[in-house]
Amino acid sequence: MTEIESILKSYSEKFNEDLEKYFPISDNIEQGAVKAMRYSVMNGGKRLRPFLLHETAKLFGVPYEKALPIAASLEMLHTYSLIHDDLPAMDNDDMRRGKPTCHKAFDEATAILAGDGLLTYAFEVLNSAELKDNKKVELTLLLSRAAGAFNGMIAGQVLDLYTDTHKDFPNPEAIICQTEELKTGCLLRYPCEAGCILGNATAEERKLLIQYSRNVGIAFQITDDILDVEGDEQLVGKTLKKDKAQNKLNFVSIYGVEGAKNIAERLINEAETSLSVFGEKAHTLKKLSRYILTRNH
Amino acid sequence: MTEIESILKSYSEKFNEDLEKYFPISDNIEQGAVKAMRYSVMNGGKRLRPFLLHETAKLFGVPYEKALPIAASLEMLHTYSLIHDDLPAMDNDDMRRGKPTCHKAFDEATAILAGDGLLTYAFEVLNSAELKDNKKVELTLLLSRAAGAFNGMIAGQVLDLYTDTHKDFPNPEAIICQTEELKTGCLLRYPCEAGCILGNATAEERKLLIQYSRNVGIAFQITDDILDVEGDEQLVGKTLKKDKAQNKLNFVSIYGVEGAKNIAERLINEAETSLSVFGEKAHTLKKLSRYILTRNH
Repeated sequence: MTEIESILKSYSEKFNEDLEKYFPISDNIEQGAVKAMRYSVMNGGKRLRPFLLHETAKLFGVPYEKALPIAASLEMLHTYSLIHDDLPAMDNDDMRRGKPTCHKAFDEATAILAGDGLLTYAFEVLNSAELKDNKKVELTLLLSRAAGAFNGMIAGQVLDLYTDTHKDFPNPEAIICQTEELKTGCLLRYPCEAGCILGNATAEERKLLIQYSRNVGIAFQITDDILDVEGDEQLVGKTLKKDKAQNKLNFVSIYGVEGAKNIAERLINEAETSLSVFGEKAHTLKKLSRYILTRNH
Repeated sequence: MTEIESILKSYSEKFNEDLEKYFPISDNIEQGAVKAMRYSVMNGGKRLRPFLLHETAKLFGVPYEKALPIAASLEMLHTYSLIHDDLPAMDNDDMRRGKPTCHKAFDEATAILAGDGLLTYAFEVLNSAELKDNKKVELTLLLSRAAGAFNGMIAGQVLDLYTDTHKDFPNPEAIICQTEELKTGCLLRYPCEAGCILGNATAEERKLLIQYSRNVGIAFQITDDILDVEGDEQLVGKTLKKDKAQNKLNFVSIYGVEGAKNIAERLINEAETSLSVFGEKAHTLKKLSRYILTRNH
């Protein structure tokens, strides 16, 4: 295990313990959706988004506990998006991280409600944090926009569904970049900005960390596309080779595997450059971006 | 048209104009969900929740414009719940207020995303209001809990689905009351509390208005059940006689139409009593509760 893999592993073990506490077990009938929320949230993700948030906040000396509710609410929101994306009317996926998706483990109605519940709970948890009210408002606005239908994650999902059925674009790369920046990028940018807000970063520091997250975000998506072609289904934990079967427009279909790898390499180099001003403090964030490039799941 | 009907009509005309402004028309592909959000939000509801919020706020001298973003965000959140409730996996309704439901007018994926988008946008709009940060945080917490899966609207929806398939309760009235208080009551209580927060109401005033909203909420649900039996499908704008066909547990199935009417009458009398301390200022709220009892749509 490399250094960053071991850091990520111990982080996610600690974070999982804390995250679980937000979902107390109850046998009350009316809390049936909470069971499904808990199931999906505790379904073994990489916790990349909360990790990014905690690491960015740490650059400015913000302790783990202080950033925890903000990181937890982000992971809840991310999980809602996965539950709804997996639904039969959307990507229709039966497996996620090697386990049945929410609507398979429960049923479709419960999965819809569990997604709704996580999205709603994310805003409750964020606003229950021990933070000044102005920071809560700033974070709530940032998160709702990043996840939103105008220029955020939902807009990205709309584009993604659109490109499934429409293939004739004059400039396919532009559409792919826009889709990925909205669908994945917004929720990878948010933790870096949220860390800056928590840590009272300067405008310049914030700009650099946004650049970092943008490059990491696109590189992350590219490696996702590459894993779909080259990955090990057991390690990745989901059905692969789906993109090609569905004739999906993505970085690999446009540039080929080697071309896509070169682009990702360039993006990660740029991401590292954005961190140079933070010196040794950004060691883990640098390792993380390099890991994005070489991950096998 | 009675006095209250005419007040409600001119309120909803004004409110609709303002609500529509939150959804600018765009031909951007990625904003496809916004079109569906706009369609459903502008689909001619009674605007009962924003009206309650505005009327409660008015008791304390809060002007219409000040309360508008809070009322608009509530109506967005309410609309999201209707879109998701109508989905095939949930109530599977084709028509709502005399028009095709969101997934019929668009498609299922778009309807899921439009619901998600409205829920997300509700928190953005609330937090964009011109209000002190501490009020935004208080309102965001109240709204997320009222709409939530632990003890809010989603928990009510879970109970409602549960009682569709489970009929053997030792105390069916208790289950029905709990279902309705969660499913409908929480989002009718919120506007009354939000009005109190906006208007800096005393704890005693807030308690009285919560009592009012609780009684109005259950009475509203009872008249819904009665309309399902006795209503005019054209006026109500949705398929009726569904409850009986589905052997649905509700106030009418337990107490019969006359028994249910008597309970609603008693609740409305209690609601009026809670308002007496506000004197003539609460005239419209009193009329509104009486209207709940006699409404035909």
